[in-house]
Amino acid sequence: MDPIRGIAFDSYGTLFQTRPLEQAAEETWPGQGAELARRWREKQLDYAWVRSLTGSYLDFWHLSADALEGAAAELDLVLSPAIRSRLMRTYLTLPAYPDVRPALTALQHLPSAVVSEGTPAMLQAVIQRNGLSRPLHVLVSADQVRSYKPAAPPYRWAAQRLGFSPAEILYVTAHSWDLAGAAAVGFQTAWLNRQGEPPEPLGVTPDREIRSLEELAES
Amino acid sequence: MDPIRGIAFDSYGTLFQTRPLEQAAEETWPGQGAELARRWREKQLDYAWVRSLTGSYLDFWHLSADALEGAAAELDLVLSPAIRSRLMRTYLTLPAYPDVRPALTALQHLPSAVVSEGTPAMLQAVIQRNGLSRPLHVLVSADQVRSYKPAAPPYRWAAQRLGFSPAEILYVTAHSWDLAGAAAVGFQTAWLNRQGEPPEPLGVTPDREIRSLEELAES
Repeated sequence: MDPIRGIAFDSYGTLFQTRPLEQAAEETWPGQGAELARRWREKQLDYAWVRSLTGSYLDFWHLSADALEGAAAELDLVLSPAIRSRLMRTYLTLPAYPDVRPALTALQHLPSAVVSEGTPAMLQAVIQRNGLSRPLHVLVSADQVRSYKPAAPPYRWAAQRLGFSPAEILYVTAHSWDLAGAAAVGFQTAWLNRQGEPPEPLGVTPDREIRSLEELAES
Repeated sequence: MDPIRGIAFDSYGTLFQTRPLEQAAEETWPGQGAELARRWREKQLDYAWVRSLTGSYLDFWHLSADALEGAAAELDLVLSPAIRSRLMRTYLTLPAYPDVRPALTALQHLPSAVVSEGTPAMLQAVIQRNGLSRPLHVLVSADQVRSYKPAAPPYRWAAQRLGFSPAEILYVTAHSWDLAGAAAVGFQTAWLNRQGEPPEPLGVTPDREIRSLEELAES
């Protein structure tokens, strides 16, 4: 394998915790927050992929609001404009996992990128809030290429921005579908499997599997 | 709008009932059949779309077995080879909805197609079992174009096989994501909304909304 010259990270669920979305939903609809959050996430991916496959891109802020509406409707929950707004704003304040800042700081000698579905405004909000503007060098949003992962354009754009070939970049993500997309364009891949979950049978084996970002910084 | 010269139908959930999958799962895992079946279906779509977006096509028989494995793992259910085989075989015996045969027979003067994720073998099994070989003229499988809906190739191939332009074909489906794909290539669309569900906010408004296939045959 090529030596690693750059590193790229997924955002939601990899660098940033999504648990506050569930908590906000639980406060609104006691007993149903977890299920609402699960279906919201599911519909975000569904809508992103359907829109990618049918050539009808919509940015992640508006797509997420649509997905929230779809998830609430499916569970027969009433979604007022105030509730929608509160849940959506939660996206702008998501905390990083505790290992993110130390690991990124330790890896600061390597050019690094975040490659996200989020709009630049959504990304900048969480990066700044978590003090990651310095250790994260490049911000790649699906919105810049109007195409969602796991289609190739966001990954290719990340490699171009980092200035290396995909084979020289380690791509780190918590999601199997994201590993599939990164591997398809030739990145080296690391599966951040914080909970020790079984792999999704998608025909892709990551080059590395890690339980925390500390493992990455140590190696 | 152009006059309708041909008609195309989605298969699973539109012509064929998927409830027996849930029942078979419920017999295996009492109390969890509905949730297993729901996640199985969800993962089928996820895997199909991820594979479409990353150019790693796998036929629907094997993809469905993978999705079943992924869904069972997520719910911590043990999936033996015998259980997997029994659940998968259920796909070959799915019953048509009661309105399918009368409606297709009444519409027999129009060239008709089924446009399905299923492999030709999976499709032929349910078509024959439900006595639909005569009223359904053309069988279009994702496997013939190695690409899953809602990407364009299966719809385009259906139009070509029917011998009409997409604008002359009415595409009938129970799924919002499928309406999006059909509309994107220019089909006229009818949403078969048997349960009176709210529409998914995917930015597509079907040309017609019907509650049963009888409505279609009558008009």
